[in-house]
Amino acid sequence: MTASLLLRNVRPYAGPAVDMLIENGRITRIGAGIQAPAGVTVEDGRGEIVIPGLVEAHAHLDKSLWGLPWYTNEVGPKLLDKIDNERENKKRLNIDPARQSARQSIQSSLMGSTHIRSHVDVDTEHGLWGVEGVMATREGYRDIIDIELVAFPQSGLLRRPGTLELMDQAMKAGCEVVGGLDPCAIDRDPKGHLDAVFALCQRYGKPLDIHLHEPGEMGLFSTDLIVERTRALGMKGKVTISHAFSLGADPALVDPVIEQLAELDIAIMTTGPASRPAPPVKKLLAAGVRVCSGSDGIRDTWGPYGNADMLERAMFVGLRNNLRRDDELRLALDVCTSEGARVMEVDGYGVSEGSNADLVILPGETVAEAIVTRSPKRRVLKRGKVVARDGVSIRTAP
Amino acid sequence: MTASLLLRNVRPYAGPAVDMLIENGRITRIGAGIQAPAGVTVEDGRGEIVIPGLVEAHAHLDKSLWGLPWYTNEVGPKLLDKIDNERENKKRLNIDPARQSARQSIQSSLMGSTHIRSHVDVDTEHGLWGVEGVMATREGYRDIIDIELVAFPQSGLLRRPGTLELMDQAMKAGCEVVGGLDPCAIDRDPKGHLDAVFALCQRYGKPLDIHLHEPGEMGLFSTDLIVERTRALGMKGKVTISHAFSLGADPALVDPVIEQLAELDIAIMTTGPASRPAPPVKKLLAAGVRVCSGSDGIRDTWGPYGNADMLERAMFVGLRNNLRRDDELRLALDVCTSEGARVMEVDGYGVSEGSNADLVILPGETVAEAIVTRSPKRRVLKRGKVVARDGVSIRTAP
Repeated sequence: MTASLLLRNVRPYAGPAVDMLIENGRITRIGAGIQAPAGVTVEDGRGEIVIPGLVEAHAHLDKSLWGLPWYTNEVGPKLLDKIDNERENKKRLNIDPARQSARQSIQSSLMGSTHIRSHVDVDTEHGLWGVEGVMATREGYRDIIDIELVAFPQSGLLRRPGTLELMDQAMKAGCEVVGGLDPCAIDRDPKGHLDAVFALCQRYGKPLDIHLHEPGEMGLFSTDLIVERTRALGMKGKVTISHAFSLGADPALVDPVIEQLAELDIAIMTTGPASRPAPPVKKLLAAGVRVCSGSDGIRDTWGPYGNADMLERAMFVGLRNNLRRDDELRLALDVCTSEGARVMEVDGYGVSEGSNADLVILPGETVAEAIVTRSPKRRVLKRGKVVARDGVSIRTAP
Repeated sequence: MTASLLLRNVRPYAGPAVDMLIENGRITRIGAGIQAPAGVTVEDGRGEIVIPGLVEAHAHLDKSLWGLPWYTNEVGPKLLDKIDNERENKKRLNIDPARQSARQSIQSSLMGSTHIRSHVDVDTEHGLWGVEGVMATREGYRDIIDIELVAFPQSGLLRRPGTLELMDQAMKAGCEVVGGLDPCAIDRDPKGHLDAVFALCQRYGKPLDIHLHEPGEMGLFSTDLIVERTRALGMKGKVTISHAFSLGADPALVDPVIEQLAELDIAIMTTGPASRPAPPVKKLLAAGVRVCSGSDGIRDTWGPYGNADMLERAMFVGLRNNLRRDDELRLALDVCTSEGARVMEVDGYGVSEGSNADLVILPGETVAEAIVTRSPKRRVLKRGKVVARDGVSIRTAP
């Protein structure tokens, strides 16, 4: 599963051109004029930019309609409309989690992602269908991408009896992260919901990544309850809040919360949503908070957008946060690469000697240009092996 | 400049497949099994979608850095920082308006735009350099795209003496629309600014398209002054407010303003900005207000984003306004096509017998899919002639 390769004439983060020797899946030397050891293939970098693999830190691999006939969306406006519509139509629409997660994983890989954190629905209608499907993809596509599973109670946890037991089974089956969802707005029992998901974390020694769409004061209240439990249970550095729209509220309310997020090393995931209040990325990073990003759902019953391109996501994060300067665009890229890796605690991530050779080679004069251009002419390496080239993966979608 | 062509097997707005006979640049027949008259070329539509040409209703053709070396943006955060930085560096950076507008026009055309409204800087530093350059492009590239010029006092009107006289010269030289900019925030004299630009409209019998970035109550105050003058001067249907961020304020303040916009047929241009309050597109359309969109600046000293793709713009408008349903995505497309044509008062626009054959043929099962996929495999027709195919224009950029 690992490979050796001499990568000639690439520019790490658009800096000066170097050669990179990759041996057994790791970068062993970076410098000028490196000779290829006998039998090692040479890949011509053509002076292009090299960055570490993009990190898709918030996907829903089990539910994309990718590759299925077009789904005409006529769903109502509320969050619960979308939740109920999806749960009720998943089987009818033939959204098989194994097939669909494989399709999306290939798509992610060929756009340059080398790591995915996927929330996976756990509910009383479908049980562990989603978890089993995405686990099959996790095993079957290890050569091109690493996938981490979050057991995710999409339809609510306490409001649908039996879900908590299924969540427990999902963790037992090998999910790496405990998920949660809007303790006030959906489950209508913030104490009950949070006590339950934190108890799962404790039982399995796993981190938490909780969806929090709740806006304004309600979301900040839930955040406060999350902070309280993170501190009390010694889970510093082990909690991620996804979406966190409430951090887009009045800075007078939000700034004290950011201090606590930093203190307890609670990470934030933002998609850079254009139509919702959003976490202030620059301010969070400046405060030392880890900030990652993800595609969220792509082309599913929730909405038609998305292509799993984390460079496009860097653009969305940039547009949402009014990042215009080149140094700001670099922050947007960090959110979609190194920050995501920190949130997922990926070992050996980066473009340096000793790092895993999970890399993207792409055209552009600068990092900012690479983001705004989003060339499809990308080469993607996973553990030193070229797994995608110009939009074509070494794997064929089912 | 016009052509005849039989377009076989295309689906107008993703509806049933038809043939279209184009004669002398106009669609003369739409139906099944149309035979090509002698000597008329047949273009195989392959069952793809056909829509009318995309309408780029807010560009800045004179100032893009397209095709120039990468500009490292280190500009300060305020609007005036960006205005001053640009004016002071335009010549040093070799931003020749004739060359740059030609480059962007070709890029627009190959992404599917057939009409552009371009604001063009008029200031005491560069005089009519911009206007003359874009006019040269307007003439030189008439075969691929129609361009309308707005004389635009980018650096302010009254605060920089001499600018108003230059604006007058620009209108005399043949600009089709009078521009304006933030009467309170930039010019600091709302009455003076608006009286001056409306007087130009009256003198030349031309419409107004005014940039209004002013947020909240200040922007609504300026809007009120614009409404007052539109009514008093009988300019119903002849005014566009671009950006109009203040319409993203509290609906209790905004809703009465929308009624007046509808009454006086004042159009709104929105880019679907992710980081700013934005006009509520669905609500405006439902009230009968014309709403168009545009790329605004692309890759200029203001910021690095943009590629002049009005299908991508439809996506941005959709994302900003949380448009997810297929019928909502169609509205986003309308904003970037027919609504823009209504704002620019384009004659003979559409996909019907008698319309000009300004068309885009592109893959997709539905309109929504065409927007979210944004395939580069587009064919663009201007007056019945194929002017771009798969990202390659019939014109070569200077």
